[in-house]
Amino acid sequence: MSLETVSTNRSHGGTQGVYAHASAETGTTMTFAVFVPDHEPGARLPVLWYLSGLTCTHANVTEKGEFRAACAEHGIIFVAPDTSPRGEPVPDDEGYDFGKGAGFYVDATKEPWKANFRMRAYIERELPALVAEAFPADMTRQGITGHSMGGHGALTIGLRNPQRFRSVSAFAPIVSPLACPWGEKALGGYLGADRAAWREYDACALIADGARVPALLVDQGSADGFLEDQLKTGLLVEACEAAGQSATIRMQEGYDHSYYFISTFLGEHIAWHARHFA
Amino acid sequence: MSLETVSTNRSHGGTQGVYAHASAETGTTMTFAVFVPDHEPGARLPVLWYLSGLTCTHANVTEKGEFRAACAEHGIIFVAPDTSPRGEPVPDDEGYDFGKGAGFYVDATKEPWKANFRMRAYIERELPALVAEAFPADMTRQGITGHSMGGHGALTIGLRNPQRFRSVSAFAPIVSPLACPWGEKALGGYLGADRAAWREYDACALIADGARVPALLVDQGSADGFLEDQLKTGLLVEACEAAGQSATIRMQEGYDHSYYFISTFLGEHIAWHARHFA
Repeated sequence: MSLETVSTNRSHGGTQGVYAHASAETGTTMTFAVFVPDHEPGARLPVLWYLSGLTCTHANVTEKGEFRAACAEHGIIFVAPDTSPRGEPVPDDEGYDFGKGAGFYVDATKEPWKANFRMRAYIERELPALVAEAFPADMTRQGITGHSMGGHGALTIGLRNPQRFRSVSAFAPIVSPLACPWGEKALGGYLGADRAAWREYDACALIADGARVPALLVDQGSADGFLEDQLKTGLLVEACEAAGQSATIRMQEGYDHSYYFISTFLGEHIAWHARHFA
Repeated sequence: MSLETVSTNRSHGGTQGVYAHASAETGTTMTFAVFVPDHEPGARLPVLWYLSGLTCTHANVTEKGEFRAACAEHGIIFVAPDTSPRGEPVPDDEGYDFGKGAGFYVDATKEPWKANFRMRAYIERELPALVAEAFPADMTRQGITGHSMGGHGALTIGLRNPQRFRSVSAFAPIVSPLACPWGEKALGGYLGADRAAWREYDACALIADGARVPALLVDQGSADGFLEDQLKTGLLVEACEAAGQSATIRMQEGYDHSYYFISTFLGEHIAWHARHFA
């Protein structure tokens, strides 16, 4: 696998890089960002994955996330993938909430999406192999987090891979695509009308069906305009309680859906993941 | 004076706001950002001014500066003005380094610039009066910092107003517009060919002519592509040494001119200003 370095910038005593590669899964060039703190020669550092939300690329969290100070302090590699395949041959939708920028971390099974929209396989298999090869990563110590659609991605990928991730967290996640308009549009489009096929992409359904994560932390802003119709944090609280999944799910008073919210608490999430890497 | 609230977002236990007002100095609508940390009712907080660089608005540092955690910790209001007047009637230049986005914190004396390009008066008089009225600011405790062209602004405004600012810092400042292409183009355009008139807008000349600041901190990245031709940090070191101006001027190994550099050290600058507000 060959990796093209798009840019590197020294920051917080480490290297913030942006990289591109030809993805076998998506059939496109995929771009992602990695922060590697300074470390002893030969050291292997734990890896925190950050999955972004609708309309985002790797760049949003890389510029606005305020994560590097905490990653440098705790010695953690931070990987921020894109949210979908990009480029001319990739099909798209007029909405911001489907198609490019809205891959929903699924492997699509329907035309015209299934050739390129393989973000589940990309995050679960292809990109980890590349990260393990190209960076000083200790793949026995991984955590995952994300925002909104990426919070959905972190929760569902975490629940399906409890042996891979020691800790799972999320910011304002879509907790149940089965139960919200964003989810109905995206999963209906990528997977088709059979809602039984959606359950492996629904955090609440996965928990109800028996999936568990070793440790779970969720922050949700009380002033988030998407809370009531799309995010529905209460469904995750109920699913965890019904299933006995231990979780810390916090309502943060006055915070909205933006990076002003994420950047406030991302350092705290990193410290929490670091405790699980110890 | 009336202030329009463009947006507010809760962040780091405070309020990040963006505001607009009709400026008497520039004859335009001016936009600026203010972060106010949570505080006791009736409390007055010290104010740190951040002046931005070429092409920037208030938004760059507001999104990428990573300053809110430190301002919340130290109880400091952070004010980020725009870098020039904006809008249709304002004259402009084809270059990124003159006209809109490039006010250089001067009061222009030449046509067609002098009607609108009054960023010195705006930062020295108009905006402080507005901030004092609209925010819980203790105007007896002010500091100023900035980046590149804004570092030049912070240094020169600080040097001309030592009674107003307890502390002055800068990131990768243009230390001598008299001695670099950016400065020659901008000051030549705004002020005309008489270089004697430029001296009050040149940090090194101001220091040579007797101006002093109470405390001075400068960080410069060693990998900054503008260092040799435009920024010339060494001239500031020489000016301070020749005049007996105490200063801490640091070369930061491997850092460039970007917000990846600024965000690494801005929290440290805020802590340094906080010590001067105590």
